[in-house]
Amino acid sequence: MAKKPHVVILGAGYGGMMAANQLQKKLGTDRANVTLVNKHDYHYQTTWLHEPAAGTMHHDKARVEIRKVLNPAKINIVQDTVEQVKTEEKQVVLKNGDDLSYDYLVIAVGSIAETFGAEGVYEHSYHKWTLDGARELKDQIEFQFAQYRNQEEAEEQDLTFVVAGGGFTGIEFVGELTERVPELCEQYDVPREKVRMYVIEAAPSALPGFDPELVEYAMNLLEHRGVEFKINKPISEVQEGKVILKDGEEIAASTIIWATGVRGNPIIEDAGIEANRGRVKVEPDLRAPGLDDVFVIGDNSLIINEETERPYPPTAQIAMQQGVKAGENITNLIMGGTPTKFEPEILGTLASLGGKEAMGTVKARKMYGRSALFMKHMSDNRYLMKLGGLSLMLTKGRNPL
Amino acid sequence: MAKKPHVVILGAGYGGMMAANQLQKKLGTDRANVTLVNKHDYHYQTTWLHEPAAGTMHHDKARVEIRKVLNPAKINIVQDTVEQVKTEEKQVVLKNGDDLSYDYLVIAVGSIAETFGAEGVYEHSYHKWTLDGARELKDQIEFQFAQYRNQEEAEEQDLTFVVAGGGFTGIEFVGELTERVPELCEQYDVPREKVRMYVIEAAPSALPGFDPELVEYAMNLLEHRGVEFKINKPISEVQEGKVILKDGEEIAASTIIWATGVRGNPIIEDAGIEANRGRVKVEPDLRAPGLDDVFVIGDNSLIINEETERPYPPTAQIAMQQGVKAGENITNLIMGGTPTKFEPEILGTLASLGGKEAMGTVKARKMYGRSALFMKHMSDNRYLMKLGGLSLMLTKGRNPL
Repeated sequence: MAKKPHVVILGAGYGGMMAANQLQKKLGTDRANVTLVNKHDYHYQTTWLHEPAAGTMHHDKARVEIRKVLNPAKINIVQDTVEQVKTEEKQVVLKNGDDLSYDYLVIAVGSIAETFGAEGVYEHSYHKWTLDGARELKDQIEFQFAQYRNQEEAEEQDLTFVVAGGGFTGIEFVGELTERVPELCEQYDVPREKVRMYVIEAAPSALPGFDPELVEYAMNLLEHRGVEFKINKPISEVQEGKVILKDGEEIAASTIIWATGVRGNPIIEDAGIEANRGRVKVEPDLRAPGLDDVFVIGDNSLIINEETERPYPPTAQIAMQQGVKAGENITNLIMGGTPTKFEPEILGTLASLGGKEAMGTVKARKMYGRSALFMKHMSDNRYLMKLGGLSLMLTKGRNPL
Repeated sequence: MAKKPHVVILGAGYGGMMAANQLQKKLGTDRANVTLVNKHDYHYQTTWLHEPAAGTMHHDKARVEIRKVLNPAKINIVQDTVEQVKTEEKQVVLKNGDDLSYDYLVIAVGSIAETFGAEGVYEHSYHKWTLDGARELKDQIEFQFAQYRNQEEAEEQDLTFVVAGGGFTGIEFVGELTERVPELCEQYDVPREKVRMYVIEAAPSALPGFDPELVEYAMNLLEHRGVEFKINKPISEVQEGKVILKDGEEIAASTIIWATGVRGNPIIEDAGIEANRGRVKVEPDLRAPGLDDVFVIGDNSLIINEETERPYPPTAQIAMQQGVKAGENITNLIMGGTPTKFEPEILGTLASLGGKEAMGTVKARKMYGRSALFMKHMSDNRYLMKLGGLSLMLTKGRNPL
């Protein structure tokens, strides 16, 4: 009898978890061995990170132990950091453990911040949209308030928060920040008017890709809560305590949050797989071009929306669907079938704006306020239900009302 | 052209509201006039009343203005009390307004407490499971605590609460009461051990009809919270400040809550319609026997479960489904079609036990604790969604987690 194939999944984000979940369901342990490699022993909800980052949600709510939602008897869970992928040798080099050989590989290692050529981003801004990154940012925000109160000569920039990027992530974060700031002002006896919040966007509009009415709704709401927008203003450099715009303007701020977009994890490019900003333009069945045994999903993949002829933005929604499809296609291959085409189904796009506010589209219908937040929370809950059933939803789910 | 038929619905409970909702959707105003008569200008959630009654929910959460969920341009809403139904004259006599003539009548006037022959129930107990009844009971509970603290010689019976009936309503109420009591003790500086809560049940088991495992779960939980059960103990009489059991035992209690079950509103029997405990054994299409133009639904109707050959208990679930069917059948009749048979679909039965606790069955599967409460709240929300869409659910819905 031939050796059982070894499926290795790199990364336990939305894509990796759904791929593992699918393989656990569809493929008997007598058919294949499946290994999931992840840096931490937990999975976290990337799309919720703006909340622990602003301090409006405890970070533990946004994470779940991997072995609580995957069956360790069916999936071999390895906590380690991926150093390198060698596609010719069919090997994965880990930081601490032994190399792993694979027959099928799923690359789902996520993304890092894209700087778009601005200097100093990695050194001087909060740019890590990870659970640890969110915790650091929360601590920093609180520290600035504490310092402002305790210092003899407090400086305005201590309570200036600059969000670089007025896209999805930047807007969701600043929405939470506007909810948190009044609490912090009360807690630290700081007058509200001392706090300044900027959103700086290089494109001609905030929230590119959203309907103009929705953009206006979000901007009006956030401006009412004290956010100042600088639109059509690319940033050239971040220095310690300030951002410098291309037009020469400088904004002094002790806390600079980078949220202009992402590029795929450098592991992709290091592996010699052709990529654009670290994203691989995958085949219709989600395999990397020329590599029959490597599936690339989530933020590491790039797929084209056939209607608009432009790439889909990297979202959790697509990553999850790709994870399921990668799992299905690997099952097909192992069972002697053929992989099938991935077709994303975009159910909607909803951005939270802090408190009970949100906006976006569901099946092309515009939604605002509590209705939009309701739909967003229901969709969060649906994911938890798929991932870990009713018990996960009950412990980590979101009350929709 | 013939005169448009007049459909009159009596009562805006679960059955009446769903009937009106169905007629509003299915029947154009050019086809019929529809009138809904109700004592109040609001509809309330009878199945939630144990919460405002114990003070764990504001009563306004449990009600909604009728004209907010029905369209007054399509349904004529009359606030009045039904005095009499004259089936031969096809007339409804109202307390304040003019008599109404009908072509089709839907009787959905609900129920009153069944005493099972015990004396003094109506005079000396809280027996009204209406929104006003719940408010009275809540005030009484708080008054007893206030009085106990302020009186020089406080008596034990002031803080003794007797729930007569360990069925669905009694158990759900006492579950809430156990959640409220610790709050009240703190608020009024009353030692917890001064409060006594009894549930007295005539049948050989609490929660008749529930699986024994579920009954045990509920009783254990409530006993842990301080409830004392007296099972298999019929009550012979209620007097001012005490209940007398058939075996001679007397329990002194300033607050006696009657929850042993219901009988149909006396209007049914006054109308000369054949009934058993005020409930009409309706034809398969929900019409009263011998009356082609009168539909009887909800607590006023009695239908037999063909599997067990026993009547279904009167529940909101069945009342809603009957309301929809009555609306459909009247639409059929007016459009020249034939009414069809009502077939209840029992999705489950879930009883809340206070706090995050509940138990029951969903599709024959037993559920406990938060999972059960989740399913119960989702089902509450589904009803609100049907009745008034997303906006009603958002304002009156229940967070399921």
